[in-house]
Amino acid sequence: MSETGLVKQLIRSLTCLPGVGPKSAQRMAFHLLQHDRSGGQHLSQVLQQAMVQIRHCESCRTLTEQTRCELCQHPGRDDSVLCVVESPADVWVIEQSTAFKGRYFVLHGHLSPIDGIGPDELGFDILEHKLASADLKEVILATNATVESEATAHLIAEMSQKQHIKATRIAHGVPMGGELEYIDSNTLIHAFKGRQTL
Amino acid sequence: MSETGLVKQLIRSLTCLPGVGPKSAQRMAFHLLQHDRSGGQHLSQVLQQAMVQIRHCESCRTLTEQTRCELCQHPGRDDSVLCVVESPADVWVIEQSTAFKGRYFVLHGHLSPIDGIGPDELGFDILEHKLASADLKEVILATNATVESEATAHLIAEMSQKQHIKATRIAHGVPMGGELEYIDSNTLIHAFKGRQTL
Repeated sequence: MSETGLVKQLIRSLTCLPGVGPKSAQRMAFHLLQHDRSGGQHLSQVLQQAMVQIRHCESCRTLTEQTRCELCQHPGRDDSVLCVVESPADVWVIEQSTAFKGRYFVLHGHLSPIDGIGPDELGFDILEHKLASADLKEVILATNATVESEATAHLIAEMSQKQHIKATRIAHGVPMGGELEYIDSNTLIHAFKGRQTL
Repeated sequence: MSETGLVKQLIRSLTCLPGVGPKSAQRMAFHLLQHDRSGGQHLSQVLQQAMVQIRHCESCRTLTEQTRCELCQHPGRDDSVLCVVESPADVWVIEQSTAFKGRYFVLHGHLSPIDGIGPDELGFDILEHKLASADLKEVILATNATVESEATAHLIAEMSQKQHIKATRIAHGVPMGGELEYIDSNTLIHAFKGRQTL
């Protein structure tokens, strides 16, 4: 009731953002309207463009507005290592945190027959094609640490081994800064299994 | 480096929202791109419209896309009481929380000579005009509880009294659910001064 149509609409629309409830949306709307109209207009334009133009890279399936993403186009990256992840956000976080300089492949999920997600949905045809490339020496499986993601990693490992390519899995264990006392037993089991010589 | 231009631009643009840092912006961008493109497009459209069309109501100065806002146009509201607030967000919160059914006037700030905010910037000319109306019996001063807002309230109270209109100030005291032990002394002084007979 209290406020005009468009202000209310704006507040309601902002709640489509994850983690934004009615109170934060209200604060955001009033902030933009009172202090940052140009920021709001710019956001509107970028949002529109992004929603329409961004699609999957035809080579690695990450999100990009180009046919092939910047990472696939980059001439300086190592073609002999392929890192398989579940989502474009994972590519982002690996790029920000690690020194990995190989190529990526984004599954957009993991095998989940109950939800109708099989090899086709995860782009295994494109992956198969990549595994057939002569340059490739190692596939790093950086899928999540859940049961279904493990199963997905194992299937890709088998596909790689068929092509005589080494398949590796990122380490699972105690997170840095973590205290043993508070770690769940499954993680601890993995930490012991994956122990390395110092 | 890690991701393509438009994804990066979207993440950067989202940080114009208050309370949204790079990490939340990243989460929002990927959520919209992967799970809610139509929500993102709708938000973009509403945002564009809102940034361009929303202006100040010519009667009460709140935010609206119309010449006069819904609240000013509403025939059922009480013309004899005027509630003066500092921001459109205050109108919103009063409407949501209280049973107030009078009219509003939005100052868009408080007197602050050091920032060049004087009576003109706060719309005192429109307010003066409203105070001259025969129907008006009471002005409720619901500005914030800071020094400058108090000064602003006092000035408006004087303007009202000149027109023989009763000026009232919302109560200051211990917030509901608050414990005396943790209340600052200034608030406590106000709470004692403003005590009422039960």
